[in-house]
Amino acid sequence: MAKPSTLDLAGIFPALTTPFADDGSLALDSFRANLARYDRAGLAGYLVTGSTGEAVLLDREELERVWGAARDAVRSDKILIAGAGAESTGEAIARVNRVAALGYAAALVVTPSYYKAAMNAEALVEHFRRLADAARIPLLLYSVPQFTGVAIDAAVAGALGEHPNVIGMKDSSGNVQRVTEILASVPPDFQLLVGSAGTLFPSLALGAVGGVLALACALPEACLRLYRAAREPDPGLARVLQQQLLAANRILVSRHGVPGLKYAMDRLGYYGGPPRPPLLPVGAAARHEIDAALASLGQSAASPR
Amino acid sequence: MAKPSTLDLAGIFPALTTPFADDGSLALDSFRANLARYDRAGLAGYLVTGSTGEAVLLDREELERVWGAARDAVRSDKILIAGAGAESTGEAIARVNRVAALGYAAALVVTPSYYKAAMNAEALVEHFRRLADAARIPLLLYSVPQFTGVAIDAAVAGALGEHPNVIGMKDSSGNVQRVTEILASVPPDFQLLVGSAGTLFPSLALGAVGGVLALACALPEACLRLYRAAREPDPGLARVLQQQLLAANRILVSRHGVPGLKYAMDRLGYYGGPPRPPLLPVGAAARHEIDAALASLGQSAASPR
Amino acid sequence: MAKPSTLDLAGIFPALTTPFADDGSLALDSFRANLARYDRAGLAGYLVTGSTGEAVLLDREELERVWGAARDAVRSDKILIAGAGAESTGEAIARVNRVAALGYAAALVVTPSYYKAAMNAEALVEHFRRLADAARIPLLLYSVPQFTGVAIDAAVAGALGEHPNVIGMKDSSGNVQRVTEILASVPPDFQLLVGSAGTLFPSLALGAVGGVLALACALPEACLRLYRAAREPDPGLARVLQQQLLAANRILVSRHGVPGLKYAMDRLGYYGGPPRPPLLPVGAAARHEIDAALASLGQSAASPR
Amino acid sequence: MAKPSTLDLAGIFPALTTPFADDGSLALDSFRANLARYDRAGLAGYLVTGSTGEAVLLDREELERVWGAARDAVRSDKILIAGAGAESTGEAIARVNRVAALGYAAALVVTPSYYKAAMNAEALVEHFRRLADAARIPLLLYSVPQFTGVAIDAAVAGALGEHPNVIGMKDSSGNVQRVTEILASVPPDFQLLVGSAGTLFPSLALGAVGGVLALACALPEACLRLYRAAREPDPGLARVLQQQLLAANRILVSRHGVPGLKYAMDRLGYYGGPPRPPLLPVGAAARHEIDAALASLGQSAASPR
Repeated sequence: MAKPSTLDLAGIFPALTTPFADDGSLALDSFRANLARYDRAGLAGYLVTGSTGEAVLLDREELERVWGAARDAVRSDKILIAGAGAESTGEAIARVNRVAALGYAAALVVTPSYYKAAMNAEALVEHFRRLADAARIPLLLYSVPQFTGVAIDAAVAGALGEHPNVIGMKDSSGNVQRVTEILASVPPDFQLLVGSAGTLFPSLALGAVGGVLALACALPEACLRLYRAAREPDPGLARVLQQQLLAANRILVSRHGVPGLKYAMDRLGYYGGPPRPPLLPVGAAARHEIDAALASLGQSAASPR
Repeated sequence: MAKPSTLDLAGIFPALTTPFADDGSLALDSFRANLARYDRAGLAGYLVTGSTGEAVLLDREELERVWGAARDAVRSDKILIAGAGAESTGEAIARVNRVAALGYAAALVVTPSYYKAAMNAEALVEHFRRLADAARIPLLLYSVPQFTGVAIDAAVAGALGEHPNVIGMKDSSGNVQRVTEILASVPPDFQLLVGSAGTLFPSLALGAVGGVLALACALPEACLRLYRAAREPDPGLARVLQQQLLAANRILVSRHGVPGLKYAMDRLGYYGGPPRPPLLPVGAAARHEIDAALASLGQSAASPR
Repeated sequence: MAKPSTLDLAGIFPALTTPFADDGSLALDSFRANLARYDRAGLAGYLVTGSTGEAVLLDREELERVWGAARDAVRSDKILIAGAGAESTGEAIARVNRVAALGYAAALVVTPSYYKAAMNAEALVEHFRRLADAARIPLLLYSVPQFTGVAIDAAVAGALGEHPNVIGMKDSSGNVQRVTEILASVPPDFQLLVGSAGTLFPSLALGAVGGVLALACALPEACLRLYRAAREPDPGLARVLQQQLLAANRILVSRHGVPGLKYAMDRLGYYGGPPRPPLLPVGAAARHEIDAALASLGQSAASPR
Repeated sequence: MAKPSTLDLAGIFPALTTPFADDGSLALDSFRANLARYDRAGLAGYLVTGSTGEAVLLDREELERVWGAARDAVRSDKILIAGAGAESTGEAIARVNRVAALGYAAALVVTPSYYKAAMNAEALVEHFRRLADAARIPLLLYSVPQFTGVAIDAAVAGALGEHPNVIGMKDSSGNVQRVTEILASVPPDFQLLVGSAGTLFPSLALGAVGGVLALACALPEACLRLYRAAREPDPGLARVLQQQLLAANRILVSRHGVPGLKYAMDRLGYYGGPPRPPLLPVGAAARHEIDAALASLGQSAASPR
């Protein structure tokens, strides 16, 4: 069945960080300031309260405040997506329909993961079907095994891709073979967004429509440059830019996580600020490593505007 | 530094399930009925809202209701422990001190786990130290890598074992070598409780003081029988009972999880009831397998009283 | 330092199977018949006695006979590569120089792997450096973690890529992110061959020069078609062909291994024959699955000529 | 069916190292000197050419020489076991019957492992059955997943335990839960030997009859002391000795492998000597760590006699 949605997800979406003040409270003014700057960069839209947004460290009232702040601050031509998954199917439905009421274009719903061994294909399909049946906005499935220990494979994506309310997925596994298999299993209007800057070019070559990228919080222009080279297509340029972004992603995101990314944002004129415990700020060695990575990307990528 | 607490955790604690009615709401009357029956079995106490209690599927208000119901129902000579961990350090502190206010003897605090790669020794020690400094009741660390992907190793346990407010830990890894190493690293008054019925006897032989066991929800007497044989010590009997309990645990708990355990409880005269989605009730094949496992344990273990 | 070798490895190399007669002995006539048919397909050359060649199941005298048979049978314009690795550095040197003496163009040398924990970067670099210093023909490193549990990462490849006698590597990990990182770490004349048909297109897009593929034993034309579409570049066609080949590779190679591949070869007019124990011939269910996979690839790919 | 063999494997067997001279050749005089000293320690017998014996780094002719040297040097009341496994079923049969002809009491046969995914229960049972049918001496199965990536589980052990010529197994997995399950699945006269000093006491408590231990090459007396405390039973002493041996085993064997063990042997008056490449001698940091571990075990364990 064709998707009723006309939402076109082609392009780059930063997976936004959630700014905190030094006392640990939400720093929504800084959040708005970051968004104002991102709005000038040519991005397709934004993901709020995803893994990079430290959503699992926010309570329900804080989630509301972040959702509202983004909704009020973002330009109307940008696509707004909210991370709205939860361990419990009922809680996930409640969150999805809350962001629907707030005017979000789509919700990103992560696999439940605490009871890993129970999250087999049958349980995942059932969970997401209930969600999709109840949701008042389109859903994007979210597979991020490095955090959850649970991956959405091609069989699950294929079964859910038939649902008119499941318009696509974010695959952050970094597994290009799985991307190939998923794209072979879903309808042509199912939109796959890659969730790791390290595999953006090959994933686009294989049919992904875009990326939802933590790295784009710090380096939106560099991510867009690679996206455009891949879509051109200019494989020679894309290859070189992909090598650069993979190296940067390894250090800023894979190795040093949200704290590393926030530090890089601070260095580049965004508000990064402290992570929330149990995440710890990066130490001196990590800062040095990140500084070197940014320097090697050169002025055009790494300097504040 | 010696522990100020005189809490003696020797013995068997069931990791209680949380009963739900068919409409998905809490079934607290059934919870109380289960507790009344457990109170006659010779158990040392109870853990509520742990992994087996589907705590990650309860909202904050439901947690309160379960904590209150157990507190009111349980005999005063039983040790009550509440699962009170959270991804965020701040939320975990709030939960621990809430169960302290409700009169719980101790809180079990699981490792944060979403940002797995960041949960290195430094971050874990820092998280638990902040908790232990702020907590108004003693803490038990909780390592359950099959759910979290994060394990507490001997170095982390050793560093935290010095804190006067960390009186022990529950290790559910099933890794007996790690139990040996942890016990070599902590002070003598640090109490290790094993979290898996499959390794109860060898863990007790190595110095663990007891167990916090999902299997004890369905088979409290069998777990107690093994505990006593191990403490006697009667190694010949303990060996045979351990083989039986490991086999039962594989099927009821490891393979079929909370839904399998709840089904077994229903079969044995307790209230098991449905799991909460995304957990699905066990199907016909699993029910058959569990029935066979209970039958092979014989009347004395498996028949309702 | 530039490579003295002018060996151009661009193209597709089947990782040849080793034919056995029903009594378990080498079936070299069938081996030659397969080679005669492959010689007409437009392949760049051949790998003998690799993982697909069941090299670990051959004794030293059998290896000699296979090396000699291939050398005598293959057309002179085809590049002949021999798998010549061994657990022991000394034995690997002996094998490499033996195939050198037989006239092989290059040797493929797998990582030692029995003492996995000891095969860190230092040990791997030292092992391959000694080999490269002693070898009288150019070397290709071989990383195949699904068999060995040991992977060659970008740091090791980068260190060895400087050696004039290491002209490239075969990466069978299926990890496209690693391919990107390796290509960013090696000199421009270091030739990367992908070892899995499932990631041929994205690897070529990222700069690999070709593939050494088990699947090409059964489906050389289909592999060549994808190779050419990727080199054109015709990304739309390459994407479709890649999805088809990944599906075929999953079934014939990943799931059913050498026995599955040999069965498919039998079905397509090559000599597959039995695997050598402990490998077991595929059963009825696997044969049915492979038949269906071949049928779905259509006449042009799957029918004998 | 009862085992025809009357071989009683109760006790401690060192998994002997293979001494090499500085030029890399076999140092059989040193091998004999080590054996003469071991013969005075109260060990049950010896395993030659196992994983610790660097068997995968020896060629066939060297294996013969080691087998012969041990056969000639060892006291007649000691049980001699030879590692005789191979990737190919046929080669394993040949090796087993060669050591049978040399007078070995039993052969230890490791799981084939290169084609890991194919080594399912069916293939393992078939491989070992063919071996057991053809072997002229009793067999011990060998499960060592840290080297092979393949484990023998309870179902495979149970199926093979019925064979009259399979008298037991060496389980080096360090997984005590698996030991429990295996012992529940095999006939009472099937003898399980644990392959890791780190789990000797709990494994003996659960019904293992002894150990085949790398650590016993350096510390035979300490291993025997733990064995006797466990058999007494003296659980309090066994617990303390187990903690000490696990700590030593972690450093000498798990962390630094055969090179670490050989260094420790050199320090304790045995001949350790260099490992064979690709294994590298331990560096200064490892030597320091091993020295400290030996010192912490005290004079009685660590000083040369």
